[in-house]
Amino acid sequence: MKRPTISDVAQRAGVSISAASFALNGRPGVSDRTRQRILDAADEIGWHRNSAARALSGGTTNVIGMAIPRPATTLGVEPFFMELVSGIESVLAVSGYALMMQVVAGVDAELQVYRSWWGGHRVDGIIVVDLRGDDPRIALLEELALPAVVVGGPADVGSLPHVWADDAAAATETVGYLAALGHRRIGRIAGLPDLLHTRRRDEAFRQASATYELDSIDIVHTDYTGLEGAQATRRLLSSPGRPTAILYDNSIMAVAGMSVADEMRLSVPEDLSIIAWDDSQLCQVIRPAITALARDVTAYGARVARLLLDVVGKNGDVEQRGVQVPAPRLVPRSSTAPPRR
Amino acid sequence: MKRPTISDVAQRAGVSISAASFALNGRPGVSDRTRQRILDAADEIGWHRNSAARALSGGTTNVIGMAIPRPATTLGVEPFFMELVSGIESVLAVSGYALMMQVVAGVDAELQVYRSWWGGHRVDGIIVVDLRGDDPRIALLEELALPAVVVGGPADVGSLPHVWADDAAAATETVGYLAALGHRRIGRIAGLPDLLHTRRRDEAFRQASATYELDSIDIVHTDYTGLEGAQATRRLLSSPGRPTAILYDNSIMAVAGMSVADEMRLSVPEDLSIIAWDDSQLCQVIRPAITALARDVTAYGARVARLLLDVVGKNGDVEQRGVQVPAPRLVPRSSTAPPRR
Repeated sequence: MKRPTISDVAQRAGVSISAASFALNGRPGVSDRTRQRILDAADEIGWHRNSAARALSGGTTNVIGMAIPRPATTLGVEPFFMELVSGIESVLAVSGYALMMQVVAGVDAELQVYRSWWGGHRVDGIIVVDLRGDDPRIALLEELALPAVVVGGPADVGSLPHVWADDAAAATETVGYLAALGHRRIGRIAGLPDLLHTRRRDEAFRQASATYELDSIDIVHTDYTGLEGAQATRRLLSSPGRPTAILYDNSIMAVAGMSVADEMRLSVPEDLSIIAWDDSQLCQVIRPAITALARDVTAYGARVARLLLDVVGKNGDVEQRGVQVPAPRLVPRSSTAPPRR
Repeated sequence: MKRPTISDVAQRAGVSISAASFALNGRPGVSDRTRQRILDAADEIGWHRNSAARALSGGTTNVIGMAIPRPATTLGVEPFFMELVSGIESVLAVSGYALMMQVVAGVDAELQVYRSWWGGHRVDGIIVVDLRGDDPRIALLEELALPAVVVGGPADVGSLPHVWADDAAAATETVGYLAALGHRRIGRIAGLPDLLHTRRRDEAFRQASATYELDSIDIVHTDYTGLEGAQATRRLLSSPGRPTAILYDNSIMAVAGMSVADEMRLSVPEDLSIIAWDDSQLCQVIRPAITALARDVTAYGARVARLLLDVVGKNGDVEQRGVQVPAPRLVPRSSTAPPRR
């Protein structure tokens, strides 16, 4: 089927092409009644404004871009990421925006994608994830003046609008809770070490261990997979003065850690308390149910999308550049208890 | 920063605008040396062909569209979906294509999105997921002649290219395996009943139960969440003549089922064997590890993307309209055993 044109609409409505064009572009020059007839005709034959033509004439694309700086194969294993996308989509969908995602192999490829998207009028704005130290994306986005919102912050985001949560407060609260239960040796099995939020959590974890005068802490970094979570757990539990509690950076690693404890004939929570950062269905349905740092990731994504649509609508001139969403809150379940003895 | 134009490239290279235009559009009329200088200048100042202009002139958009007919909030809980997207992205990324996703509230909204994308020259082709009975999307896509590939089939896809796996064979193999272990009463806790693949699995499950002369089977449909998986398990395990084995349509429901068994003082696998359809990290790291129907979902997504790029490149004139990927294969682990007694 041929795509319908303005000329087809005009023919259907029985008006001139210029009258159809006036009506469809919302310009004066046709009566309200004729305009309605033309709009009805457009609906009937399925005419749609050509987004390419509109983009050329300086209009909007109604597309938000998101480059994904992780291997395509890991997308499916990290629920945080998909819940964030869900939340973003929930706002974009009702606003008539589509989300354009492109997996990129590294930061250079990502910079290239931004230049190409912006230069080619393919997106109205972008969402930046997985912030790193001295992130070159920040400088490029400032230079291009490409409307963008960073997931993260509040530091290291340059002048870019951003949505952040106080991970440090949540890490401190968690260590305080374990200390109150009587734990003196605590491990942390963390995610990728070059991500800024991993570093912030590491730092808060170290500071809290000093505040609460713990005997020892140990931090191991992983790639977020169950496999590396299990390996790191074996390492911590095999060390002299092994921890009596471990905080994991996601729930699949926490479950893997629980299985390693079982392998080593350690009971959860009597011999080992386990906490997962980011609650999930999994933490709730498994037995023992896993104590978790819960936050509404879908709402986080929705807030990011709303801020970006605001930035796009006001050409970057938004009042509030940094939006804070609630910090994760600790939800105690059966996987944590005072240590044995 | 202003987006660079052909005029900026010409100025940078010290040539006329028409010379720059010739060179950048690959037309004759400039020497190879001048052409190279112009291309270098374009690279240096970050000039990119305007994709909107290219789309208007009948070129391609280098965008593949995918409407998502599920609530945005469920995206993050279904690993199959994200692994499929991962696989699609892995092919699109190296081909320079972006993936445009839009969550739609229902089938009417989805049809509208297809008309709008195609009419507005926003995508080169689309990927169709979650096939249903008498799916109105098939007829529309045939009518629009919009390049499309269906994830599913081989029946009920009209004339559209599709990529499918033999779910029926996998269901039959699984029932045969449980029957060989000595199970006579088997339950199936399935996903959404209006999805075609759910119906095919249901049907194969019923046929296999006749083939293997089981005493009873019971099928319960759910929304794929751990919550409904737990409820369905409680219902099956509370019935007179409760099943000694249950096959779940995803791994989070299998884990929820394992916890319900624990609640009811039933041991896995002694009192209840558990199998998950679609293997996952979770099935591997949990104890007991869960027997699963494993398939390479990422490879499935990659195959879908390759077929679609083929369809787009050849204006729909592909040789092979139906591509079959390997059926899921059963991976026995510790959650299955002969029934007690």
